[in-house]
Amino acid sequence: MERLLIQNGTIVTPDEIMRGDILIVGETIARVAPEIRADDARVIDATGLHIFPGAIDAHVHLRDPGATHKEDFTTGTRAALAGGVTTILDMPNNSTPTTTRAALAEKRAIARARAVCDFGLVIGATAENAEEINGTRTAPRADERGKNNLIRVPPRSSASNDELGAVAIKLYLGATTGDLLVTEFDPVYRHFSARNDLPIVVHAEDNDALNFFAGASRHPQKRPAIAAVLAVARVLAIAETTGRAVHIAHLSTAREIELVKDAKARGVRVTCEVAPHHLFLSTDDEERLGAFGIVNPPLRAPDDVRALWQNLAHIDLVATDHAPHTRAEKESAKPPSGMPGLETMLPLLLNAANEKRLSLSDIARMTARNPVRVFHLAHKAEIAEGFDADLTLVNLDAEFVIQKPFETKCNWSPFEGTRGRGKIARVILRGREVIADGKFFAEPGNGREVQRT
Amino acid sequence: MERLLIQNGTIVTPDEIMRGDILIVGETIARVAPEIRADDARVIDATGLHIFPGAIDAHVHLRDPGATHKEDFTTGTRAALAGGVTTILDMPNNSTPTTTRAALAEKRAIARARAVCDFGLVIGATAENAEEINGTRTAPRADERGKNNLIRVPPRSSASNDELGAVAIKLYLGATTGDLLVTEFDPVYRHFSARNDLPIVVHAEDNDALNFFAGASRHPQKRPAIAAVLAVARVLAIAETTGRAVHIAHLSTAREIELVKDAKARGVRVTCEVAPHHLFLSTDDEERLGAFGIVNPPLRAPDDVRALWQNLAHIDLVATDHAPHTRAEKESAKPPSGMPGLETMLPLLLNAANEKRLSLSDIARMTARNPVRVFHLAHKAEIAEGFDADLTLVNLDAEFVIQKPFETKCNWSPFEGTRGRGKIARVILRGREVIADGKFFAEPGNGREVQRT
Repeated sequence: MERLLIQNGTIVTPDEIMRGDILIVGETIARVAPEIRADDARVIDATGLHIFPGAIDAHVHLRDPGATHKEDFTTGTRAALAGGVTTILDMPNNSTPTTTRAALAEKRAIARARAVCDFGLVIGATAENAEEINGTRTAPRADERGKNNLIRVPPRSSASNDELGAVAIKLYLGATTGDLLVTEFDPVYRHFSARNDLPIVVHAEDNDALNFFAGASRHPQKRPAIAAVLAVARVLAIAETTGRAVHIAHLSTAREIELVKDAKARGVRVTCEVAPHHLFLSTDDEERLGAFGIVNPPLRAPDDVRALWQNLAHIDLVATDHAPHTRAEKESAKPPSGMPGLETMLPLLLNAANEKRLSLSDIARMTARNPVRVFHLAHKAEIAEGFDADLTLVNLDAEFVIQKPFETKCNWSPFEGTRGRGKIARVILRGREVIADGKFFAEPGNGREVQRT
Repeated sequence: MERLLIQNGTIVTPDEIMRGDILIVGETIARVAPEIRADDARVIDATGLHIFPGAIDAHVHLRDPGATHKEDFTTGTRAALAGGVTTILDMPNNSTPTTTRAALAEKRAIARARAVCDFGLVIGATAENAEEINGTRTAPRADERGKNNLIRVPPRSSASNDELGAVAIKLYLGATTGDLLVTEFDPVYRHFSARNDLPIVVHAEDNDALNFFAGASRHPQKRPAIAAVLAVARVLAIAETTGRAVHIAHLSTAREIELVKDAKARGVRVTCEVAPHHLFLSTDDEERLGAFGIVNPPLRAPDDVRALWQNLAHIDLVATDHAPHTRAEKESAKPPSGMPGLETMLPLLLNAANEKRLSLSDIARMTARNPVRVFHLAHKAEIAEGFDADLTLVNLDAEFVIQKPFETKCNWSPFEGTRGRGKIARVILRGREVIADGKFFAEPGNGREVQRT
C-alpha cells in the first residue's frame, strides 16, 4: 500500500495544537508522532502549514437529482474540496424529495458516480413516512413513562439504520426550498418517538408564524425570530419527552441559543449548528446584497450575530447550508432563498481565528469532531491512528480574496470581495492528495459514502 | 356611615403577621393600628382569630348562563363566601361562550342580580374576535422591532378596557369544557399583539398533542404533560415577542414551572396559578376518585406535585378552577372534566400552613395580593386604609371535616372526608358581615363588579 508522510506540519485538534508528523498507509492514518521516519514513504513537506482534520459539512444542498443547472454532485463536491471540506451530508429537499428508500437509493447511485469527496445522505421526513424510515413501531408504550410524567423512549441501537443507509432524518417544520414540510403534531411526534436513533435534523421555523408574517404587509421582516423560537421550543419539548436526539439546523438567533443551552443543561439530547452567513453577515448587509442575501432563516440583527459568537462554546457545528441558485434565478422577480458556502466557510473561519475571534481548536471541534459525534460517522474526523486520512492543510498567513471563478456551478458568493488570511493549501482524502497548490486531482467517483458507527 | 371595629385579631398580610385592630367605615377600611378606640362602632371580637384579606379566586366557572343545573351565580358565590372567597373571576366558557360585548353584558346583568360576593368577568378569545375585544389595531408595526429582532409591543394604557369591562381575556389553546378553542398562530398572535393590556389567561395544553394522545389507545394518559409543556413554551415565546402580559392557568407540571421561572428571569410578563387539586391530589388518588377525579389538566404524578410545592415562591396565585358538574353527570358513561373547589381551597391551605408546608403570608400573597396585581383589581386585597373592607376571619385551631352539604349546587367535593385544622369563622364583604358563625347574611344582588385600576 502507498505510504505518505506529512512532515513538519502543525497539527490542529479540538484538544491541542502540536508540531508533528503523520504517516498514512493506504487510506488510513497509521501513526501520528512528533517525528516519524519512513524512508519508503512519499513526503509532503508541511512546514509552515496547519493540518486540520478534513472538514465535514453537515448541511449541504447539492440539487442532484432534479436541479442540476444549479449544482450537481460533481460541482458541489469540487466546491467542497476547494473549501477544505472532505465530507458533505446532502439534504433531501430535492425537486423530487429524498423521502423514500427508493429515492435514497437513486441519489446514492448518483453520488457514487459523481462525487469527488465523501458524502452521507439525509432522508426527509414526511407526514406519512415515519414508519418507512424509522422502522415499524411508533406508538409510545405504557412502560415508557419517565420522570415528570413525560413519555421517555430510551435510546435504541440503530438496527434499522444500516438497512436505510441514511445518516439522519431531516424534518422541515417551516417551508423553504422544496416541498418538504411537516407541521402537524401527529407525524412529528411519530418520527420522534419511533424506535430508531438516527438524529432528527430540524429546520426550525414555525410554519404558521411564517405564513402570518408573510401576509402581514407592514411587517418589517417576513421570517422573524419568533418563528424560529417557537419551532425550537417545540422540538426541544418533544425531544425531551421522547428522548430522541435532535439537531437544530442553522440556528440564528440569541433566544434559540439560550433555549438550546438550557435544554442541554437539562440533559436533552440536542445539538445545534450555525451557518457561516449567520456568523459573518447580518441585516446590515441586506441592502448591499439584495436578493443574494436572501436565505432561510434570514440574516439576523447584529445583536443576534453577537450572541452566536459569544456562545460558540455551546454551538456544536458550523455547517454551510450550501444552497446554490443561479445568478439569473437570484436576479429574477421572485428570487429563491439560499446561498453557496462550501468554498468560503473554512477561509472565513481561519481568518476569524487569525483575528482571535475563535481558536483553531474551535474550528477543528465544530467542523470535524462534533459532526462525527452528532451523526456517528465511523472513521472520520480525528487525526489519529486508524481514522480515515482526511486532512486539510492550510496556510494561516496566506492572504485570500473571495472572488470568481468558484467551483460551485452557481459561481457566486455573498462574500465576494472579502479579504482575509488563511488559505487552503492541500487537501487529502482517504490518503490521496486531491488538492495541491490549487490543482485538483480528484475525479468523479472518488467520493465514498460514510458509514455510521 | 356604619362603623365596624374588629378588635384583637391577628392580621395576616403577605409581608407580616401582627396583632391589630381594624376600623371599617362604610365599605372601606378606615384605619389599621395596634389598638383603635371607636366608641360608636359596632365591635367584632376577633380574639383567637386570624384576619386574612378576603380571598380572590381568579379562576371560577359558575355555569351561568347556560348550565345553571350545575351552578348559578348565587349558589356559586355562596360557595365562594363559605370558603372565605370574597371575589371571584368568572370564566367565559359557558354553553353560549362569553366572547362578545353582548354576551359579556348579559352575564354582567345576571351576576349583578344573583351574585352574593364580588365578581369580575373574563371574556373569551376566539379566532375572530381579536379586534372586537382588543380594540382595532392588531398588526405589528415596523417601529416595534425590539432587541433580538423580536417584535416588541410596549405595554399600553388600558383605554379600551373600561369600555369592555372585562378583567382578562381567556385563551383556550386546548379543548376542554365548552367550545372555546383557538389553536392557530394567526389569531393567537393577533390577540397577543393587540393594543390592549388586559392580561391573557391561557389554558395551556396543545390541542394537537391532546388529540394525538386521545387517539393513542395504548397511551397511559390521555392528556400527558407534553401537551401542557408545548403550549406553555409556545405562549411564553409569543408573550416575550409581543410584550403582552400572559397568565398561565392551572399550571400543573414540574417542567411548566421551570419554563415560567426561566421566562420570569428573562423579564417576560408572565404569571401563573396552580389549582388546589394539583397541590393536594395526585395520580395516586385517581383510582379512589374515579370520574370525580377527572379534571383538565389531569391530576399529575407525585413528582409534579412535589415540584409545585417546592416552587411555591414562583407561583403567583392559587385559584380553584371551580368547575362544578352534577353527580349524575360525573357518574355517567362520559363524565365531564372538572371539580368544585371554592369551599375547600382556603381550609386546605390553612391546614397546610398548620402543617408548615407554607406560611400564612404565602396564603395572603397567593389568594389576595397577587390576584389583584395580575388583574389590576382596584380597591381589593390589602388590609390597609382606603381598600375595600373584604376580610376573612379564620380559626386556625378549629378542626374541619370536608363533607356535605355544600353550598355549590353540585354538592360534592373530591376532598370529601378530608380532615384538618383551619375553619372560616367570619367573612366581611365591603364592610358587611356576610358570614358569621356559619350563618349567611348575604343576599343575591349583594355582589359588585370589580373595577380595574
